Amino acid sequence: MRILVTGFDPFGGEPVNPALEALKRLSATLGPHAIERRPLPTVFHRSLDVLGDAVRTLRPDLLIAVGQAGGRTEISIERVAINLDDARIPDNGGQSPIDQPIVPGGPAAYFTNLPLKAMVRALGDAGIPAKVSNTAGTFVCNHVFYGAMHLVATEFPRMRAGFIHIPFLPEQVARHPGQPSMAVETVVAGLTLAIETAAGRTDDIAVADDATH
Amino acid sequence: MRILVTGFDPFGGEPVNPALEALKRLSATLGPHAIERRPLPTVFHRSLDVLGDAVRTLRPDLLIAVGQAGGRTEISIERVAINLDDARIPDNGGQSPIDQPIVPGGPAAYFTNLPLKAMVRALGDAGIPAKVSNTAGTFVCNHVFYGAMHLVATEFPRMRAGFIHIPFLPEQVARHPGQPSMAVETVVAGLTLAIETAAGRTDDIAVADDATH
Amino acid sequence: MRILVTGFDPFGGEPVNPALEALKRLSATLGPHAIERRPLPTVFHRSLDVLGDAVRTLRPDLLIAVGQAGGRTEISIERVAINLDDARIPDNGGQSPIDQPIVPGGPAAYFTNLPLKAMVRALGDAGIPAKVSNTAGTFVCNHVFYGAMHLVATEFPRMRAGFIHIPFLPEQVARHPGQPSMAVETVVAGLTLAIETAAGRTDDIAVADDATH
Amino acid sequence: MRILVTGFDPFGGEPVNPALEALKRLSATLGPHAIERRPLPTVFHRSLDVLGDAVRTLRPDLLIAVGQAGGRTEISIERVAINLDDARIPDNGGQSPIDQPIVPGGPAAYFTNLPLKAMVRALGDAGIPAKVSNTAGTFVCNHVFYGAMHLVATEFPRMRAGFIHIPFLPEQVARHPGQPSMAVETVVAGLTLAIETAAGRTDDIAVADDATH
Repeated sequence: MRILVTGFDPFGGEPVNPALEALKRLSATLGPHAIERRPLPTVFHRSLDVLGDAVRTLRPDLLIAVGQAGGRTEISIERVAINLDDARIPDNGGQSPIDQPIVPGGPAAYFTNLPLKAMVRALGDAGIPAKVSNTAGTFVCNHVFYGAMHLVATEFPRMRAGFIHIPFLPEQVARHPGQPSMAVETVVAGLTLAIETAAGRTDDIAVADDATH
Repeated sequence: MRILVTGFDPFGGEPVNPALEALKRLSATLGPHAIERRPLPTVFHRSLDVLGDAVRTLRPDLLIAVGQAGGRTEISIERVAINLDDARIPDNGGQSPIDQPIVPGGPAAYFTNLPLKAMVRALGDAGIPAKVSNTAGTFVCNHVFYGAMHLVATEFPRMRAGFIHIPFLPEQVARHPGQPSMAVETVVAGLTLAIETAAGRTDDIAVADDATH
Repeated sequence: MRILVTGFDPFGGEPVNPALEALKRLSATLGPHAIERRPLPTVFHRSLDVLGDAVRTLRPDLLIAVGQAGGRTEISIERVAINLDDARIPDNGGQSPIDQPIVPGGPAAYFTNLPLKAMVRALGDAGIPAKVSNTAGTFVCNHVFYGAMHLVATEFPRMRAGFIHIPFLPEQVARHPGQPSMAVETVVAGLTLAIETAAGRTDDIAVADDATH
Repeated sequence: MRILVTGFDPFGGEPVNPALEALKRLSATLGPHAIERRPLPTVFHRSLDVLGDAVRTLRPDLLIAVGQAGGRTEISIERVAINLDDARIPDNGGQSPIDQPIVPGGPAAYFTNLPLKAMVRALGDAGIPAKVSNTAGTFVCNHVFYGAMHLVATEFPRMRAGFIHIPFLPEQVARHPGQPSMAVETVVAGLTLAIETAAGRTDDIAVADDATH
């Protein structure tokens, strides 16, 4: 199985991005599977060009994009990507789109095809805080998530894909009093287990989402 | 202009629902417009039967459904409804659907066609806390929001429709230490202004969503 | 019974102070009791000069000082004042004391002599969110609270005194996305009931503090 | 220099206490200094008997007691201990004191004599989230903190002593959706640096408390 994991470069004035830090520490293999790790620019559309090239070259069976969600306490497995860019801050290319579709004429949203409840449970059982999230926001994270699912819908119907949001790192929070954080080791352990769970099954488990609402 | 506003009956062990309390206090007219106010049962699907009947009878130009979002600090104008029921707690009919589509074969999501940024700004200018929200959850609130937009898409293309989430009332929070609340008078003033803004314009203003992220 | 209630003028860049807004709306009588309402400057030491003059002139039986605690969700009845000024922002006179005693040689802290559990319960029973708080911070609010209790300890042993912190007003939060707020009407109802309870009994009820921890 | 560090056993239905987990992983030496590590029972008064015996036997130069503060995001260096027990939940001996003094006739509060601003800054500079806290609550943590400072005041005037609150561990939060957590490795690094800073200086630095208020 070929697995592609992506992470963003720092944005919004932060010197690091926890997604990129985690990516660097992720193992290059997971049992019999190879994990390709690719950075993405935190730039609307250019990120999707880079992602599209990587997917067309590597033809992964499983794609997981990872991004920072400052202020969240858990690793969040995202459920749904929406066809909308609405930027509160400029991206790293200086763009601040307001209420623009990502793919004009595309569907309003895509659901992930990952087994998200099984992923959340696997992390919880391992003592790693995790939840299902019903919004990936409207910045570059949601943009890449939507773009990834659009690749599934239009070019790679057998690829499984999704997005995982991770909290600030402790070193970031040392400068943001009052915000929760998660150690990079916990994040890497969580991502590894999430990838392993997603690689190991296609159907999800039938449990209510304890963390939703 | 005919305006239909709905609110849910209490659920989850709460003796009141702030949406229904606000509905009772909402004026029956707004300038030249008549406001019809209808309670909805907090029950998957039955709520949509009641809503569908009301819309087919009243043929409103504007439909705003209102629901409780315990734990939120502001009035939230919802942006997007997703085609999914996932119930952490049973509805008032005892149903707890897990990961079920609301409309099998329906689109993954619908965006509201209300001018939500203009609504948020109008409330903010009047000193009433408000924000855009990118998730209405996966319980009966999102269910009714999706159903409302499905009516727009399939039967009433000229109807404008959306969903507004409101915080707990102070009297509820007196029993939930640590949760934010909003006085029913503030909620009613906010809903009135939101309805007035939605009735008065079809296009939205082009501002970034300060509250998103 | 003579009752003195004080509130601060706005600080920290806020155009209003909810304490002063509530003070303006508070009734001048409460049953047989007269309520004197006095504004205090948000300035270290000068606030205590004004308070001391008022207490020596009016000789109240009950003194309740009221201040803003931005970010809190409930009306907080403060339990303890500490002998320390530590200012994160300048006061309205431009002073930012760091780790200074309020009264050199004074005791490290004073407990209020108000029946705070009875006050919290009275508000809760009336549907107004309230809790006991174990810290009034280290800015001018705690400064005035400590000064008030020092007056009790040194000059007015029969006076009962305490401090009540109140949340932001909705109009303030309309400019602080994500913060909880409370309508001025709810605040005034809560303060009135708190004063009434404090005026009506000297002993407290023996219940654990549900909100502490 | 002899250093004593204490941690509590689990309470409130939790299978672990992060303080005890951190204590187990703390080094027995710190440069030239020996660190004695002692568990304390989460029981009012019995905890102080154990602490008193340990202090009288070991005669430490520096005493740091560590406890869990579920819901906090940072390592909190406590500023002040108050002479009051008020238990929302029973301790591990089944006691739930309500509004009782810890030491009848003792002062209302004691300030720590640790250099807390310097400790917070050292942790922040090392990328570990930390803040000054102005309340240690009213449960066994505050009880032990007050008891420790009372030992300083009455028997060991040259001992330096204080209390550090730490967040939930990730494995606890995996069962408490929505709560922040901190990896035990981050906690141990933070405690080590806090102890090192406290051992290395007696005076504090003159900076405002960025985290207070």
